[in-house]
Amino acid sequence: MKMNAFTVENIPMIKEGDDIASFICERTDIENNDIVVIASTIVSKAEGRMFRLEDLVATEDAKRIADKLRLDPRFVQAVLDRSHEVLVEFPILLVETDNGHVCIKAGIDDSNVDEGYLADLPTDPDKSAGDIGERIEEITGKNISVIVTDTNGRAFKIGQTGIAVGVYQIHPIRNWKGEKDLFGNILEVTEEAIADEIAGAANLLMGEGDGGYPVVIVRGLELRSQEGSIKEMYRSEREDIIKKGLRSLSKV
Amino acid sequence: MKMNAFTVENIPMIKEGDDIASFICERTDIENNDIVVIASTIVSKAEGRMFRLEDLVATEDAKRIADKLRLDPRFVQAVLDRSHEVLVEFPILLVETDNGHVCIKAGIDDSNVDEGYLADLPTDPDKSAGDIGERIEEITGKNISVIVTDTNGRAFKIGQTGIAVGVYQIHPIRNWKGEKDLFGNILEVTEEAIADEIAGAANLLMGEGDGGYPVVIVRGLELRSQEGSIKEMYRSEREDIIKKGLRSLSKV
Repeated sequence: MKMNAFTVENIPMIKEGDDIASFICERTDIENNDIVVIASTIVSKAEGRMFRLEDLVATEDAKRIADKLRLDPRFVQAVLDRSHEVLVEFPILLVETDNGHVCIKAGIDDSNVDEGYLADLPTDPDKSAGDIGERIEEITGKNISVIVTDTNGRAFKIGQTGIAVGVYQIHPIRNWKGEKDLFGNILEVTEEAIADEIAGAANLLMGEGDGGYPVVIVRGLELRSQEGSIKEMYRSEREDIIKKGLRSLSKV
Repeated sequence: MKMNAFTVENIPMIKEGDDIASFICERTDIENNDIVVIASTIVSKAEGRMFRLEDLVATEDAKRIADKLRLDPRFVQAVLDRSHEVLVEFPILLVETDNGHVCIKAGIDDSNVDEGYLADLPTDPDKSAGDIGERIEEITGKNISVIVTDTNGRAFKIGQTGIAVGVYQIHPIRNWKGEKDLFGNILEVTEEAIADEIAGAANLLMGEGDGGYPVVIVRGLELRSQEGSIKEMYRSEREDIIKKGLRSLSKV
């Protein structure tokens, strides 16, 4: 088995209203079963999801948290506005967004955006992935998948990895349930987080610095499905021992 | 930029004492800067790190935990024997191993091993990676990197991904500190967990079932360094808010 992954070259700076799908198709030959991996920053830009701190007014709650973290209270307000629950206030601001994604600062990004502006995550990232994916399929006549990515830290270990925040025509989890191992025993590891693995692979090529490539094509994996939602990947409240731990901490 | 990744075909069942490096070199042409990704299961087998439950005697502590989890008390004893700290006893058995790796059940694996046997993680996985890496370099005359992998769950999300547990001639973290983004601002995301991203990419090809491929070559990334240890990636106690949360939970 093999796969390859490559960056789409010369994607211009994305502005509100830009047609990302066309930009991609003009710059690369898409094949059937390609997985088109797109950094959420450019999706947000194309969707016009930029905002300015100066347009926000901080509540007392935002001021209190901002004081502990030495952040701009208006920035904290922006995070609170997008969050379903604050899991940790200090030393990191870890929240669950309205979309179910647990991340630092609600994924608000101040990298690779115009000065004074901040970039939201797409508010419905599956829809964003779907809009771009359907348009690529319309232009090329090929059947593809799309993964919209962000970078995220993780528990217990230093460093961020690329992760999936929205998908089109791929299930984020591959289920090995019932399959047998080399010795014929039923496998214990049954759920592989393929969308995050693909996002991480793409992130190796995207780069973070001023040589950044926001679009990567992953080819060779036969993982396309007829449907798929990022929400299949989020753990249910009942099962989540780590959330429970963080909540108990805030009560100490 | 591009990368490609492919499985090494026809690796035989590994037995104690087998020379994994030779098996790899006989079956593929290694190039400079290749990253050789190897599933920890076969490393453990070659190193003879298999053990049997029937050789173990469970302590009272192991019996108490096993009762809650409905596991064999001797299995729980094996986990405790390899753990520095138990972070969660129930509903999952989450521990920090003596090596600093936080994982379920100390990474003890009962997939792809002979019946009645269990596979330990390599006890010094950097050394395991180094031994195999040096031998591949000796055979081929090429300069390469090695990543020994396992699969791991993660916080907040369903599913396992491939992760690095030991490295040779690659830093697990790529530091972007001080680099500038597209607009000339200093980047906030500064540490990319490249070893885990590479392990995840390889895991897409390794598979979990009876078509498993335990060795994947990742080519095209210029990430080789003169040194590197998996311990660079483990978060220090002081910084780890999630561990703190889990400990506070066990005291409730």
